Amino acid sequence: MLLSGGLDSAVTLAMARAAGFACVALTFDYGQRHRAELESAARLAESLGAERHAVVPVGLRAVGGSALTADIDVPKDRDAAHAADVPITYVPARNLIFLSIAAGLAEVEGAGAVWLGVNAVDYSGYPDCRPAFLDAFRRCVALATRAGSQGATLDIRAPLIEMSKADIIRAGADLGVDFALTRSCYDPDPEGRACGRCDSCLIRRRGFADAGVPDPTVYAG
Amino acid sequence: MLLSGGLDSAVTLAMARAAGFACVALTFDYGQRHRAELESAARLAESLGAERHAVVPVGLRAVGGSALTADIDVPKDRDAAHAADVPITYVPARNLIFLSIAAGLAEVEGAGAVWLGVNAVDYSGYPDCRPAFLDAFRRCVALATRAGSQGATLDIRAPLIEMSKADIIRAGADLGVDFALTRSCYDPDPEGRACGRCDSCLIRRRGFADAGVPDPTVYAG
Repeated sequence: MLLSGGLDSAVTLAMARAAGFACVALTFDYGQRHRAELESAARLAESLGAERHAVVPVGLRAVGGSALTADIDVPKDRDAAHAADVPITYVPARNLIFLSIAAGLAEVEGAGAVWLGVNAVDYSGYPDCRPAFLDAFRRCVALATRAGSQGATLDIRAPLIEMSKADIIRAGADLGVDFALTRSCYDPDPEGRACGRCDSCLIRRRGFADAGVPDPTVYAG
Repeated sequence: MLLSGGLDSAVTLAMARAAGFACVALTFDYGQRHRAELESAARLAESLGAERHAVVPVGLRAVGGSALTADIDVPKDRDAAHAADVPITYVPARNLIFLSIAAGLAEVEGAGAVWLGVNAVDYSGYPDCRPAFLDAFRRCVALATRAGSQGATLDIRAPLIEMSKADIIRAGADLGVDFALTRSCYDPDPEGRACGRCDSCLIRRRGFADAGVPDPTVYAG
């Protein structure tokens, strides 16, 4: 279970738990500027009943190329939902890298599936959140691992992929997710408050409003 | 260019340089017990004329499951060339993880290809060294990245994949690779000497013998 500390992966973990799965939560410390999400992930893993929480360091600052891992400003007040371009907060090949490490951990754990909270609707233009990418990854991982070469299949489960942000929030509310533990902001202030204006904050705020669910987030702007 | 500090990736880098490519060498610090290869990689990158050498930390010790990253003994004196099983030195999904990060770096660098020194002949039974895996990865990365979603192709070049170890060594000798800078041993002693008995040492020794090229390695056993 990829668990970022954000809203989508928290709801995904809640869904997997509700379906009766024992889950290992996996969070990456990749040099992200929004490091507060690591603490959120730890609290969510406990709150939602993960078996254990693995934190794997990956030095993506040495790769760079993104506002999340390099000294590039995070864009604010963008009309993200309607932008056709891939934003500067895109981290090159991030989901491919994260899923690859998850596939390794799944093999060690003997897990039958990797779950992740990607979403192709309110997805902010990231190419690695599309169903076609997940299908290609499924085929690739079957050839990449010992388990796969011995006939085991590793399922890649993305239950949110066709849901709107409002639907995700409603589903999370129904499952009792404590949204106050989740963080979405790419660019929190030094006190950890969400900026309220990056793509991720804008999508989150609109999602709560559309869902008619109170947003417990304290926004700085 | 994935550069491990071993023999195969050194010859691959020499081939890419001989073909006129400007190369960025990429080495992973993944908690491997044979950490001396990191120093070898730095020397090889310089010796073979890489533009720069990126070292990316990846915390695969948090994933475990391999004699290379966990407290499991490295097997010795195995008949590796004829073993059908995947050995305990297999690191779950390693080439998938390394290629994924390389794809991210290639996108940042604007590179048209990732080269790697995998070999399907003397390959010690690793599933992620097979041509079918590389083909699946090519298709996957085209969908995973911004560059791919905008029509750019990232080639995955594995020029050694069908070569014997002896042929690789002959090719390296022809290209002037300084084999004394390369390290193959999975389990060097505290002075950094190769054990001479792990799969990687056995394949290397036989390769030099078959090629009729002197092996500059000092073996402990």
